Amino acid sequence: MRIAIDAMGGDLAPGPVVEGALAAARQLGVGLVFAGPRDILTREIARHAPVDRVDVVEAPDVVAMHESPVQALRHKPASSIRVAIEQVACGNADAVFTAGHTGAAVVAAHGLLGMMPGYDRPALAALLPTPGGAAVLVDAGATVECRPAHLLQFALMGRAYASAALGVRKPRIGLLSIGEEASKGNELIREAHRLLKADPRLDFIGNVEARDLYAGLADVVVCDGFTGNVALKVSEGLVDALETLVREELTRTFSTRFGLLLQRRAFRRVRRRVDYAEYGAAPLLGVRGLCLVGHGRSSVRAVRSGVELAATCVSTGLLASLAEEAGRVGAAPA
Amino acid sequence: MRIAIDAMGGDLAPGPVVEGALAAARQLGVGLVFAGPRDILTREIARHAPVDRVDVVEAPDVVAMHESPVQALRHKPASSIRVAIEQVACGNADAVFTAGHTGAAVVAAHGLLGMMPGYDRPALAALLPTPGGAAVLVDAGATVECRPAHLLQFALMGRAYASAALGVRKPRIGLLSIGEEASKGNELIREAHRLLKADPRLDFIGNVEARDLYAGLADVVVCDGFTGNVALKVSEGLVDALETLVREELTRTFSTRFGLLLQRRAFRRVRRRVDYAEYGAAPLLGVRGLCLVGHGRSSVRAVRSGVELAATCVSTGLLASLAEEAGRVGAAPA
Repeated sequence: MRIAIDAMGGDLAPGPVVEGALAAARQLGVGLVFAGPRDILTREIARHAPVDRVDVVEAPDVVAMHESPVQALRHKPASSIRVAIEQVACGNADAVFTAGHTGAAVVAAHGLLGMMPGYDRPALAALLPTPGGAAVLVDAGATVECRPAHLLQFALMGRAYASAALGVRKPRIGLLSIGEEASKGNELIREAHRLLKADPRLDFIGNVEARDLYAGLADVVVCDGFTGNVALKVSEGLVDALETLVREELTRTFSTRFGLLLQRRAFRRVRRRVDYAEYGAAPLLGVRGLCLVGHGRSSVRAVRSGVELAATCVSTGLLASLAEEAGRVGAAPA
Repeated sequence: MRIAIDAMGGDLAPGPVVEGALAAARQLGVGLVFAGPRDILTREIARHAPVDRVDVVEAPDVVAMHESPVQALRHKPASSIRVAIEQVACGNADAVFTAGHTGAAVVAAHGLLGMMPGYDRPALAALLPTPGGAAVLVDAGATVECRPAHLLQFALMGRAYASAALGVRKPRIGLLSIGEEASKGNELIREAHRLLKADPRLDFIGNVEARDLYAGLADVVVCDGFTGNVALKVSEGLVDALETLVREELTRTFSTRFGLLLQRRAFRRVRRRVDYAEYGAAPLLGVRGLCLVGHGRSSVRAVRSGVELAATCVSTGLLASLAEEAGRVGAAPA
């Protein structure tokens, strides 16, 4: 197995990206092919203990976070994100991991890999921490303009991901909305509700209210990419804001500071349980190849988890499961 | 000044609703008119120290949280939520507070009060805690299907609310999206961005990313009601989930429990700083009358804050400010 890495993708690249990917490869015994400027990467790789089967493919350009994806990819054909995804397109790698520009990853993967039959639009499947484990949020930001049929396809993709890669036996599917009743939500959601409910092969539990997103009521929560991205990013911002607030209040007096000292390890556990780094990356589902998108601020640990998740997606045959689910799409009442 | 209260609205009604409203009235010297079953309310009111100018208007029916708003209002013309709003419509009260069914409040207020000229759709203006005070999120759930022109109107409503009721001098307006650039977001957001930017009288700072919702970058954050409701409810669910998680981790060992004991007051301050109860209620903007919608789980303190906010909206002339801003709408490039 070989995984391509966009070595220059992410705010902190290439340092933590190279280190995290090498750690995962060492652990799992998989091969790597890093895309990026050869001289920089050779130096970075040499800073760590040697790992078998590590290649570098030259990619001198980088797509910056603020660039327009389409423009950037057109003007920078040798960008690390594009070259990394090409490794999958040409069969040189089984999966690709990038912590770079999400929009550019979606556009490049869509363009270079194409869509799988039965799926019209790509979707990012992010993992949400819940009391019972992780739930899948799909789409977390790949397709911001959706029709109801796309949401049905996202449900099937999410189902394939949850069962193949995460080992959930009979994934319960929910639809993110602003109320439990079928009549709640906007036109898109109401019509998608009808489609999901009409498909007898889906274990559809109905609408999941936004306030229950982290309650673990469903294994797969379906939404359009705009709403999913808002839900995810609001959560991220809120966790950071609360952490600042709690730290501020707990360092005010001697006794609260002393209390904090007693709880250091407990707070570290809290942080770990909510931390995106534990969940590493989101696969871009629906495209003809395995592409995992990590957080732009990915740490060593996050990259490592992301590459491990990529390997899991390969070894559990996620693409075959997605293709199998896609068969259902054709037969679904639309 | 007289404020109408939907005494039966909310999960915990009538107890905390009556108690909170009476506390606010006592504090501010305003009159109250409670809508609900006269016998029940007379008993509830008698349980507290007497307050001047408290009336009850008979309303035997209640709209339950799970009911369809339109159906419920049609079949229960004497519901407490409807009768309370009627008090404003017929000039018997200056504002109304309800912690009942939000959808029913929106439908009833829209139907009984009508829209102000210049505003096509109602919007709920919720308050978000930020490091620098509170920011306004508009729409938080009244209008789930929006056109770009509606978002421009929401910006003007939010601006009027922030300056009149909250005393923000020159409110900075932001548009909730999934990236800072004007090109980010769905069609609705991209077109709304253009409208907001083209209006020279708005202090438009551009898109506010979902992860910065609680950072206080803008005084007013504009979005459609579906997205706003999702953002708000995801936050609420996440705060509850984190509280459970922190409590779980901090009660595991003797030393963490001892630490917690030292921090009891600090944690209470944290909770207060994030708690919706501090922010009491969201005014329904755009309708011809002051209608404040509280959280369904409103406590005594939340109801009290909500009624106090209603009084502030009356005394600061929010309706006149909204009418003045509406003048801008006509002149705005559309």
